[in-house]
Amino acid sequence: MPTISREVHLVNRPQGTPTPQDFTIVENELPDPGPGEVLVRNIAMSVDPYMRGRMNDVESYSPPWQLNQVMEGSVVGEVVASGTAQVPVGTLVSHQQSWREFALLPERQARRIEPLGHGLPLSVYLGALGGPGLTAWVGLLEVAKFQPGETVFVSGAAGAVGSLVGQFAQLKGAGRVIGSAGSADKVTWLTEIGFDAAFNYHDGPVSEQLPKAAPDGIDVYFDNVGGEHLEASLTALNPFGRVALCGGISTYNFTEPAPGPNNLGQAIGKQLTLQGFIVSSYGHLWKQMIPEVRGWLESGEVQARETVVEGLDQATGALLGLFSGANTGKMVVRLAPDPE
Amino acid sequence: MPTISREVHLVNRPQGTPTPQDFTIVENELPDPGPGEVLVRNIAMSVDPYMRGRMNDVESYSPPWQLNQVMEGSVVGEVVASGTAQVPVGTLVSHQQSWREFALLPERQARRIEPLGHGLPLSVYLGALGGPGLTAWVGLLEVAKFQPGETVFVSGAAGAVGSLVGQFAQLKGAGRVIGSAGSADKVTWLTEIGFDAAFNYHDGPVSEQLPKAAPDGIDVYFDNVGGEHLEASLTALNPFGRVALCGGISTYNFTEPAPGPNNLGQAIGKQLTLQGFIVSSYGHLWKQMIPEVRGWLESGEVQARETVVEGLDQATGALLGLFSGANTGKMVVRLAPDPE
Repeated sequence: MPTISREVHLVNRPQGTPTPQDFTIVENELPDPGPGEVLVRNIAMSVDPYMRGRMNDVESYSPPWQLNQVMEGSVVGEVVASGTAQVPVGTLVSHQQSWREFALLPERQARRIEPLGHGLPLSVYLGALGGPGLTAWVGLLEVAKFQPGETVFVSGAAGAVGSLVGQFAQLKGAGRVIGSAGSADKVTWLTEIGFDAAFNYHDGPVSEQLPKAAPDGIDVYFDNVGGEHLEASLTALNPFGRVALCGGISTYNFTEPAPGPNNLGQAIGKQLTLQGFIVSSYGHLWKQMIPEVRGWLESGEVQARETVVEGLDQATGALLGLFSGANTGKMVVRLAPDPE
Repeated sequence: MPTISREVHLVNRPQGTPTPQDFTIVENELPDPGPGEVLVRNIAMSVDPYMRGRMNDVESYSPPWQLNQVMEGSVVGEVVASGTAQVPVGTLVSHQQSWREFALLPERQARRIEPLGHGLPLSVYLGALGGPGLTAWVGLLEVAKFQPGETVFVSGAAGAVGSLVGQFAQLKGAGRVIGSAGSADKVTWLTEIGFDAAFNYHDGPVSEQLPKAAPDGIDVYFDNVGGEHLEASLTALNPFGRVALCGGISTYNFTEPAPGPNNLGQAIGKQLTLQGFIVSSYGHLWKQMIPEVRGWLESGEVQARETVVEGLDQATGALLGLFSGANTGKMVVRLAPDPE
């Protein structure tokens, strides 16, 4: 019996800031799963800043979304019909066919997940136990080579990745953790989850606020933002400091190249390292990250806060909201309730 | 019996491009060496781009030169009077009291050197077997982690450091070595010493000339220049490429901060590493570098070309000439002939 599934299509490649008119919702009819296939009811889907790049017709580390086709991304769901005994109905899975209510996919593209208990929703697999969690882990520990006692600054600190970076750093013995965010409420929340200092970048230049928050300088800068945050950090970094270049959300909607930091020469005198990374190159670290972070989540030592919007109709708005700071913690689109 | 020594003083901290009026020559009378001291006749002294930074009253990795005092830097010479049996008259030494014809210094500040033979002058200790040699070695092998088969691009390639970087890379098995320089003669010379391709950056934008010279991209960029060279290199770098940030001679005389590369975001998608370094942090590698490079010099596999000016009166002009590209290879100021 065919299943009706609504799905979101990209209908226009935005120049600059995307608008709702760049997307549309289409109804699709999915057949029953064939041999080796599963039909998944999607429960919660992820929207992430990197998706802005997938709207452009440029080959990058993630392939561009195709025009007038359903978009893709991380999602968790439950198998509701199965063409394989390996993955029976009721199995919980994560996979990449999001932006739709139901997904029909080969069994090998579905990764089995377990309920988390401790009141943690399945959507945690999209955040602290998903790509954002591994991104924070890799950037802090592998790329920036954080050492106990060091001072860490993270921009976009109230976001999915940034809020984990700061918490992971504290749990790994940071001397001081500083975050920047875009509202007073976010700044308050950062201090509640263990940041030693936080500031609202709307309150004044980062180049003035950061040195006050970090009077002895910083050793690691985890960059989610680029622009003036990166420039101010280069000045604040101590000798042999490291920058994990993770993202540049301040520039994603630019239509012209923006000038880079005017003080990159400081990288020579202070012997700094700036290293860009893509989390998919570090898949071998899942098995290191998952047990430790899961333990922290279960004990309550890590807060995996979410901003949840309901229903596929809100998904586009949730994605665009990332660029205006609508989220605190992980932005999640809920498509169906978690199973009992 | 006192020794008359002329010496160069900095009399003005230049804003922007230095001029001869920022310096003066003063005659000084040196006493005979006391116990533990040696009097050295300086034979050849080094002028280097990093010295521009020492003209500013800014604490950096090299302390600023003091106004109305003799300047400092690397020099080789011969002991002509000695207050210690450890270092007899006739000993050849290198030390840091340059910008003067004679130097009186504690014995422990003089490092003993040996004549090189093979027609190599003592001034090679200021170049291929000195700071520039170690800088090239460290930047290429330690910082940029060059691997055999890779493509290397070096800017300022006809300079003291750059010309060694390219030659070291070829001897270590580079797939392709590309250099940029500021004149047709320099470009010709680079191809004579083994660069696979070279271009004159005055002939057109680096962003156009580099991709032609490196149709398959580059894996390592050794940056002596900054500015448009760095920007073009970020675009040309292959995934997991590395940049050794060694210097930015294009910007040293700027009075205002210059914008950084407008494409630093590429460091994320291509997972690039940019690392600044100062050679003095890598002194432990002298013992690795010296025997290998000395062998290459003696066999003729490495050309240690020099641009030599004669006499202390020319020393300031030689230093300023670095910023207009007056040198091919190492710029050296000869103060006295090498001993027979």
